[in-house]
Formats: sequence, C-alpha cells, structure tokens
Amino acid sequence: MSGGTSSEAAGSVVVGVDIGGTKVLAGVVDPDGQVGRTARRTTPGRRVVTSRVEDALVAAVREAADGRPLAGVGVAAAGFVDSAGERVMFAPHLPWQGQPLRDLLAGRLGCPVALDNDANCSARAEGHHGAARGAASALMITMGTGIGGAVLLDGVVVRGANGMAGEFGHMQVVPDGQACECGRRGCWEQYASGNALVREARALMADLPSVLVEMSDGAPEQVTGPMVTSAAEQGDLVARQAFATVGGWLGVGTANLVAAFDPAVVVVGGGVSAAGDRLLDPARAALERTLVGAEHRVVPPLVAAELGPQAGMVGAALVARSLVS
Amino acid sequence: MSGGTSSEAAGSVVVGVDIGGTKVLAGVVDPDGQVGRTARRTTPGRRVVTSRVEDALVAAVREAADGRPLAGVGVAAAGFVDSAGERVMFAPHLPWQGQPLRDLLAGRLGCPVALDNDANCSARAEGHHGAARGAASALMITMGTGIGGAVLLDGVVVRGANGMAGEFGHMQVVPDGQACECGRRGCWEQYASGNALVREARALMADLPSVLVEMSDGAPEQVTGPMVTSAAEQGDLVARQAFATVGGWLGVGTANLVAAFDPAVVVVGGGVSAAGDRLLDPARAALERTLVGAEHRVVPPLVAAELGPQAGMVGAALVARSLVS
Repeated sequence: MSGGTSSEAAGSVVVGVDIGGTKVLAGVVDPDGQVGRTARRTTPGRRVVTSRVEDALVAAVREAADGRPLAGVGVAAAGFVDSAGERVMFAPHLPWQGQPLRDLLAGRLGCPVALDNDANCSARAEGHHGAARGAASALMITMGTGIGGAVLLDGVVVRGANGMAGEFGHMQVVPDGQACECGRRGCWEQYASGNALVREARALMADLPSVLVEMSDGAPEQVTGPMVTSAAEQGDLVARQAFATVGGWLGVGTANLVAAFDPAVVVVGGGVSAAGDRLLDPARAALERTLVGAEHRVVPPLVAAELGPQAGMVGAALVARSLVS
Repeated sequence: MSGGTSSEAAGSVVVGVDIGGTKVLAGVVDPDGQVGRTARRTTPGRRVVTSRVEDALVAAVREAADGRPLAGVGVAAAGFVDSAGERVMFAPHLPWQGQPLRDLLAGRLGCPVALDNDANCSARAEGHHGAARGAASALMITMGTGIGGAVLLDGVVVRGANGMAGEFGHMQVVPDGQACECGRRGCWEQYASGNALVREARALMADLPSVLVEMSDGAPEQVTGPMVTSAAEQGDLVARQAFATVGGWLGVGTANLVAAFDPAVVVVGGGVSAAGDRLLDPARAALERTLVGAEHRVVPPLVAAELGPQAGMVGAALVARSLVS
C-alpha cells in the first residue's frame, strides 16, 4: 500500500473499524457519514496473542479499502482506551493490555490511525448523524456482548480523567450478583446485554416449551442472541420473556444514569437494540417506574440508535477524518 | 429592611442559606468565601404549610444580616430545583412542590434571590474555595439526612436537561431493597446517609452491648447521627460497625459513579462526613474493590470536603453574588 497521508490524495479513503468481542467490522466512510464497501472478520478471542487480533483488523481494513490508498483509519474498540487515544488498556472481551496499538496499526497500515472506545465512537456518530443530533445532552448505551456507554454534552464526548468515562456496564446493580468477566459481581451488563439475553432464554428453556429447543438442536448452550431475537419475532414466549426481563434491567440502569446526568435523550444502540421496541418498551416502563421524581420532570425519551451496527465504525471514521483534514 | 439591591451599597451583605431536612443555616459570606455572622433554625418539617418553612428561612437570614442591608441572598435547598432556578419542584424532606419560591423570597427579603440545589451549591463552593479547587473534573457527594450530589466539569456544575443532574442518592443499588421516602425502593441513600447510619446502629444495638444504649436512655428510636459519631469516637464497636457498613456502601455507589464519569477527584461532604476517615477508609476500600479496571487506571482520591457544613451556604452565596456584582 502506498498509504496516502492526506484526505486530498486522489481516490484515497477513510476507513472506520469496529472491533468487539465477536466480530471486526471495517468500512469506507465518506464525509457525510455514508458507508461504502465493508468487510468483516471474526474476532479471534481474548486469550490469543494480540497480533492475531491485529491481523484480523488489518485484513478487514484492506478488504474494505479494496486497493485504494488509505487517508486514515479510525478504530472503535470494545474496551478501555487511554485518555491519549494510544492504547487499549483493558478489555474484558479482547486481549490487549496497554500495547501501543495506535502506533502499531499506523505502522502496519501506513496511514494515521485514531483509536477510541466503541461506545464513544457510536455516540459521536449518533450525535453527528443519528438519534442524538441536536440534543444539548445525551447518554448513549451500547448493548452488545456487554454494555458500553458514553456521555455527550453539547455534542462532545466526556472522556474523563483516565479516558474511561461511560463504562456504564460495570456499575453494580445487584450486590453479590452474577459474576462478571471484569472480575467483579453484579455488574449491570450481566443483566442487560446480549449475554444476559441468552442466559435468560437458556434458563427459561429448561422449564418451558420454546422454538429455541429446535433452533438449537436441543442444546441450550448453542442458543445465540440472534436466535432469541428471531424466536421472539415468531411469538415464542420464552424469547419474549427474556426480552422483557433484559429490557426491564435496561430501564433500571438507565434510571440510575438519568438520576445522575439528567440528559435530554437516551440513545440505545448495539446489536441487541436491533430488537427495537421489544427491548425498549419494557425499558421505558422500568425507567418511568424507577426514576426518582419522574412525576416532576420530563423523563428523557429512550430511543433506538439510528445508525445500527455501523455506528461505531462511522464514529471511528469521524475521528480519523478529524486527524487528516 | 431597606433591602439594598447592589453589592456596592454601603455596609450591605450577601447571605447564603442552606435548608435541609432538619435545619436552616444562614450566614453572611464575603467575596473570598469567608463566613461571618451565622444564624440557625430548625426546619419545621415536610408536612407543614410551606409558609412556615419560608418564615424560618427569612428569620435566619435576618438574624445573620443583623440589620445590615441585603445585597443578595442565595438559597441552597435539599431538593430538585428547576433548570431556571425559580422553584423547588420536589423535595423528599421539605414541603415545596413547584411554588415560585425564588420570587416569593425576593419579595419578602427585598433583594435579589438565587436558588439552587444544595449539592450543586456545595460543589461550587468546594470547586472555588475547597477540596476540588483546580480539578478538571470532580464529583461531589453530600451525605446528610439523604445523599445529594453534583458533577463539576472544569469548575462548572452540570445541571442537566431538567436542572436535576446529580441526584445520586436515588440511584437503585439493591433490587427490592429498603423503602425510600421518594416512594421507590433500594435507593443508595437508604444505605449510605445519616439515616442509614442511625438505622444500622439501632439494629446492631438490639444484639450487642453499646454505649448508645445509655446515650439514648435505652430507647433506640432516640439514637441520632451525632450520637453514633460520638460513640464511635469513644471506641464503641456498634457505632464503628455502623460506620464501616455505611462507608462500604458509600464506596460501592462511588465506584458506580466513577465508572460512569471518571472524575479526577471525589469530594464527600455533608453532616456524616464529619466522621472523616472512619467513614472514608471503608469507602476507599470498597471503591478500589468495586471499581471496574481499578488496576488499569488512576483511582480518583476520595477526600473530605474542606468547607464543612458551611459549603452549601458558601456556594449559595457565590450564586447570589454573581447576580449582583
């Protein structure tokens, strides 16, 4: 790759990459936030050597760019990114632990690289092009394998003293509750996430008839989040109850955050949010019920993200573009 | 009262007032945040006509002013203050529910009046003159009868879309937990507040020997927060255990807030914080234990407020002074 270092270079592209616990999604993103060619890889895991994850990331970027020179690449990672945007310090679902990832990828890709937390990137994208457009303040809650989050004030992400603001998923909601991959117990993401949805569905399947039994060939451990979503669409009561439970927990945790921040709007994104109102309606009910002073305030609308699974990628590209323009 | 309306008026004073569930504290505050003559009243309660509370407030202001003309009065109230700073919309421990309090008091006092939440006022005071001086970001947690809170970014209080940001006390930490005066259950202030401290001590007294039995004439319902603090200073194990429990809950809730905001410093004020490290040491231990990624970040120092019980009053006077100077 010749590695163009200016967005002015003829035919050069900005690529955004979103890397989570299960997949790597890369895409060419234009200045209006429109996504062009994309590419996808499976995340090799969190117990592998870090270079394997970087290999997957670089391969996805190259496939998306399709031979065009790279003006810049933005990476949205599901983990703690340091305040300088140089390293993933810690990630429950990824192997990095403080390696100088930004520079390492810039060396391999031959172009400037920007790095930030996936939820911060999604929030930026929703703030610029999506559901939080024009809001004076917004909370972004990203429900995927776990929960990420971000706070937007006047469109700017609040990054915090360590660059770690918005780690809503690890707020404790149940004393001595479910064990979390972060090493603690009772974290919100153990009750409101893709993992929680699957866990709920598996537990309910043991006692109740469900199409999930057939979908998983009778092996509850084979049930996935998309299976639960599909089963719920077919009217399966087990799947619907799993969404009601997880949606309720989404609302309880959201009420805590609204008590603390009082945002104008709450945007829910991430893979699980594809279920739409099936997830959001029980969340809205729990928010109204749990939020202090709900009867004396405007309860913020709880809305689905507009950019779907591409939000992290689009937001990462926004940061990359700010580096090179 | 002649009611001077300019801070330039000869001999005029700015008075700050802090009104909580148990007491009204008024004081003359100079431009450097130094407190002069003060006055105190008992809060008449939360089931009385509102004018009785206003009477107590006006009486405290007049006694503090001691006949000098009022340039301005700032009121820090333990409740939800609307975003315009005109009304207390709702307060678990006070009777106001949306009356135009600011203008009503301005009429009675004959001077400009500023109104804000007590925790916002305390945070402003600690940010200008106290423990959060110079911090890029800070959380203020005010432990009194309940818990109030505020977020400071670059010294400015984040007020939120309804003016209700910082209501940390009503974040749910225990599902179906202790009933709260706000009408919900499991709120943080039911586990980490003056009320929680007293409840813990009363429960422990039933089973264990304690000087609190004698201090309360054998009537647990007579135990007060200051009694528990005094008993702990005397080495009483029941009182010390009550502080350890409440301090632990302070740390757990603080960890949730730090996960969300990632502040540079956390300042704990309010009446209960007078116990100092007896409260803060168990809180620090719980914060380290509960905070996600504690091993990968700078855990913010958890420090005692420096302005003591006068912080709300001093911060209220800061706002009042900004109106008239």
